Amino acid sequence: MSLEDLGRRARIASRQLALASTERKNQALRAMADGLEQQRAAILQANQEDVEAARRSGLSEALIDRLLLNEKRLSGMAADLRRLAELPDPVGERFDETTLPNGLHLYRQRVPLGVLGVIYESRPNVTLDVAGLCVKTGNAAILRGGSETLRSNRALVDVARAALQTQDLPLDAIQFIDDPDRARVLELLKLHEYVDVIIPRGGEALHRFCREHSQIPVITGGIGICHLFVDESANLEKSLAVIHNAKTQRPSVCNALDVVLVHQAIAASFLPRLVEHLGRDGVTFRAEPRAWACLTSLPSEQRAWVQPAGPNDFDTEWLSLVLSLKVVDSLEEAIAHIIAHSTAHSDGILTGNAENARRFVAEVDSAAVYVNASTRFTDGGQFGLGAEVAVSTQRLHVRGPMGLRELTTYKWVAEGDYHVRE
Amino acid sequence: MSLEDLGRRARIASRQLALASTERKNQALRAMADGLEQQRAAILQANQEDVEAARRSGLSEALIDRLLLNEKRLSGMAADLRRLAELPDPVGERFDETTLPNGLHLYRQRVPLGVLGVIYESRPNVTLDVAGLCVKTGNAAILRGGSETLRSNRALVDVARAALQTQDLPLDAIQFIDDPDRARVLELLKLHEYVDVIIPRGGEALHRFCREHSQIPVITGGIGICHLFVDESANLEKSLAVIHNAKTQRPSVCNALDVVLVHQAIAASFLPRLVEHLGRDGVTFRAEPRAWACLTSLPSEQRAWVQPAGPNDFDTEWLSLVLSLKVVDSLEEAIAHIIAHSTAHSDGILTGNAENARRFVAEVDSAAVYVNASTRFTDGGQFGLGAEVAVSTQRLHVRGPMGLRELTTYKWVAEGDYHVRE
Repeated sequence: MSLEDLGRRARIASRQLALASTERKNQALRAMADGLEQQRAAILQANQEDVEAARRSGLSEALIDRLLLNEKRLSGMAADLRRLAELPDPVGERFDETTLPNGLHLYRQRVPLGVLGVIYESRPNVTLDVAGLCVKTGNAAILRGGSETLRSNRALVDVARAALQTQDLPLDAIQFIDDPDRARVLELLKLHEYVDVIIPRGGEALHRFCREHSQIPVITGGIGICHLFVDESANLEKSLAVIHNAKTQRPSVCNALDVVLVHQAIAASFLPRLVEHLGRDGVTFRAEPRAWACLTSLPSEQRAWVQPAGPNDFDTEWLSLVLSLKVVDSLEEAIAHIIAHSTAHSDGILTGNAENARRFVAEVDSAAVYVNASTRFTDGGQFGLGAEVAVSTQRLHVRGPMGLRELTTYKWVAEGDYHVRE
Repeated sequence: MSLEDLGRRARIASRQLALASTERKNQALRAMADGLEQQRAAILQANQEDVEAARRSGLSEALIDRLLLNEKRLSGMAADLRRLAELPDPVGERFDETTLPNGLHLYRQRVPLGVLGVIYESRPNVTLDVAGLCVKTGNAAILRGGSETLRSNRALVDVARAALQTQDLPLDAIQFIDDPDRARVLELLKLHEYVDVIIPRGGEALHRFCREHSQIPVITGGIGICHLFVDESANLEKSLAVIHNAKTQRPSVCNALDVVLVHQAIAASFLPRLVEHLGRDGVTFRAEPRAWACLTSLPSEQRAWVQPAGPNDFDTEWLSLVLSLKVVDSLEEAIAHIIAHSTAHSDGILTGNAENARRFVAEVDSAAVYVNASTRFTDGGQFGLGAEVAVSTQRLHVRGPMGLRELTTYKWVAEGDYHVRE
C-alpha cells in the first residue's frame, strides 16, 4: 500500500472513530489488553526473532534490552491499557459555554486532533501505548516504529486492529508503515493532506529531522538538560536529598538532573558533601574550574569520581549517572546560565528565600519550573494527568507533560435562531 | 543588520518584555496611539509615496485602496490601540492550580509565546495592529510587510518603537525586516533558534509557502470556503435572511458564505426565491445541474444572474458577491460535500429539526459550526474574545478566532518543601 493510500484510509477512519462512544472505545482498549494476553506466544516469538537479528547485527546489550519483550513487560502493557480504559474521555467535553448578548449560544467542544503520525525508535511497547492513547481520544494513528522491531510491531499492530474489529470500529484507524526504508519517514512528513500532527518519540536527531522536514505541525520534546540551582539560603541537608533523587532515581529519562549550580557563598561547604553523598551511589562529576577548586581537599578515592568539565559538559543531556557542577556568583548568573544552556524542560531552585524563588519562577521560562522539588516530577502521571503521551518542550499547543486532553483540539459551536450579524 | 542579528535582539527583548507589568504595557499602547496622531503628517506622506509608486507600477485601484492610509484609517488604528489597552492581560494568569496528595503545589501560569514572526501583505494597518497585540501579550515581533508599503511600514514601526521607549521597554521587541527581497522570508522561516511561531496573514499561496518551508511552527488560517446547508425543515423566509447576511454583509472576508446546499425536497421552491432575494443586491450564482434545473422558470433578467457551475466553483473562496448553489438528496450528502470541499473554517445548517442539527454539529468538524446562524459570526470580537489576531483553520494550539490568550502559552510551576519522587 502506498503511503498516500494509507493516509487516505487513516483520514476516513479518523472521522468514524471521532464519533465512537466512550464505552465502545473503552471496550476496544480492554479487547486490546485481552488480545495481548491471548497472543502472548506469537508476540514473544516475533520479538525473539527481532532480538536475534539485532544480536547478529551487533547491537549492544543495552539497546537490545530496550527492544526486548517478555511476560512481565506484556503484562505491564495490558495493565496500562486497562487503566487507560478507566480514565475520563476528553472528547465531547464543552467549555467556555456562554450565551452572547444577541442570544447566540456559543461553546467550544473538544474533538480529536484527527490523524497522528507517530515516529519512534526501538521500544516496541510504544506501539500499543500509542494505539491505546489514540483509540481513547478518537484519533487515528500512522505508526512508524524502528526497523529493528519490525516483527514485534507487526504482531502488536495485529492485536490493536483485531481489538478495533471486536467493537466494529474501523481497523484503518491504526496504520503501520511496514517498510524499514527511511525514505518513508520523509514521505510521512509531507503527507499534510492526511496527517494533522507529527509526534516524534526518540532522540534529539529524530526531533531535529522532523522539525526540519515536516510540512505538518510537529510536537517536539523529550530532550531535557535539567538544572537545579542551590542558593545561599537553601537547607543543605534537604538539598542533598532532592539532588540525589533528581539524579539517581531514574537517570536514563529526560527529567533526570544534568547540572547543579551552587551559589559561591556555600560552594566550599556544599560541593564536597554533594560529591560524597551522590558518589557513593555511582554518580561521577564534571566540575568547572571554580567547582573543581572546592573539591581539592576530598579524600583521593572521592576525588576520583570528579573530573574537570569539558567544553560540552554543560550542554549535554547525560541520561546516565553523570552530573555537571558549576559555581555561580548570584541568582542572576544562575538564571542566565539556565536560559543559555537548558532545553527548557525542567529546571528548579533550592532556596529558603521567597523573593529568590519568585524571581526564579518569573524569569526561568522552562516547561516545568520547580521550587524546592526534584525535576523528576515532570510527568503526566505525577502531575495528575492520568496518562502521558510525550513531554513537549515546544511552546505551541502543549508544554510539558502531554495528557489525553492535549491529544484533542476543539471546535466552536454556535446555535442561534436564524441569527444574522449586524 | 542580518536576520540572525535581528532574531537575537528580538529574543533578548522578548525576555524583558515578558516581565513587564500590565500597566507599563498598556501605557506603551496609549503612547503608540498618541504617536500615531502626532506623526500623522509623516505617516501620510510616506504612505502617499507608496501609493504613487504603486500607481506607477500599475497596481489596480482595488489593491491601492488596500494600502491606502488616510486620516480616518489612522484614527481607527489609534482607537483600536486604546481599546486594546483596556482589555485584560492574559500574562501571569494561573490555572489548573492544585495541591497534589504529596503536598506539591502545582499550577500552570500563562507566559508569552516569545518571538512571533508575522508575514503579511499589503495592508499597512497590520503593522501597528500586530505591534499592539504583541506588546499587550509580552511577545516580541519580527514584522515582514509587503514591499509595496515599505515606506508606510517604516513610519509606523518608528511610532511603535518610540512608544516602547517612553515606557523604558526594549525597542528591539518590535523588529522590522526592512528589505523587500523575498529571500528574507525564507530566511525568517528557518530562524528557529530565535523565533517561536510564524503567523502568516495573507492569501492561500502565502500560507502554503509558510507551511512548506518553515522550520518553525506556523499558525495557518484565514482561508474560508464556507457553506450553509438548508434542510427540508428550515424556515425558508428566515433562511433567506441568514444567507443574505452571510453572503453580502462583507463579501471580501474569510467568513463570508461561498456555497449554499439545498435539500432536494425544497430546492424547487427555495432556489428561485434565493436568487431573486440576493440577486437584487448584486449577487451572481454558479449552479450545478440540479440547482440550474430549479431555476429555468425564472424571469430572464433574474436568470442572467445565474450561470452553470464550472469545475472549480465548489472549491473557490469567492471573496466577492458570487455564490455557488447545489442540490443534495440528504443530510448525509450535505455533510459529505462539506467535508470534501470546505476549508474547515465556518460551516452551518439551517434547520427546524433538532436531530439534524445534532448530527451536523457532531460530524462537520470545522473551526466554527453553526446551527441557524450566519457564518459571519466567526470573529474574535463577535465571539467575545476582545481582539483578534487571526482566524486559525489548523488544529493545533488554536482553532477559529485567535485572541490575546492564544498569543500565550503556559509553564508549569511546582512549589514544594524539598519534595522528592518516590
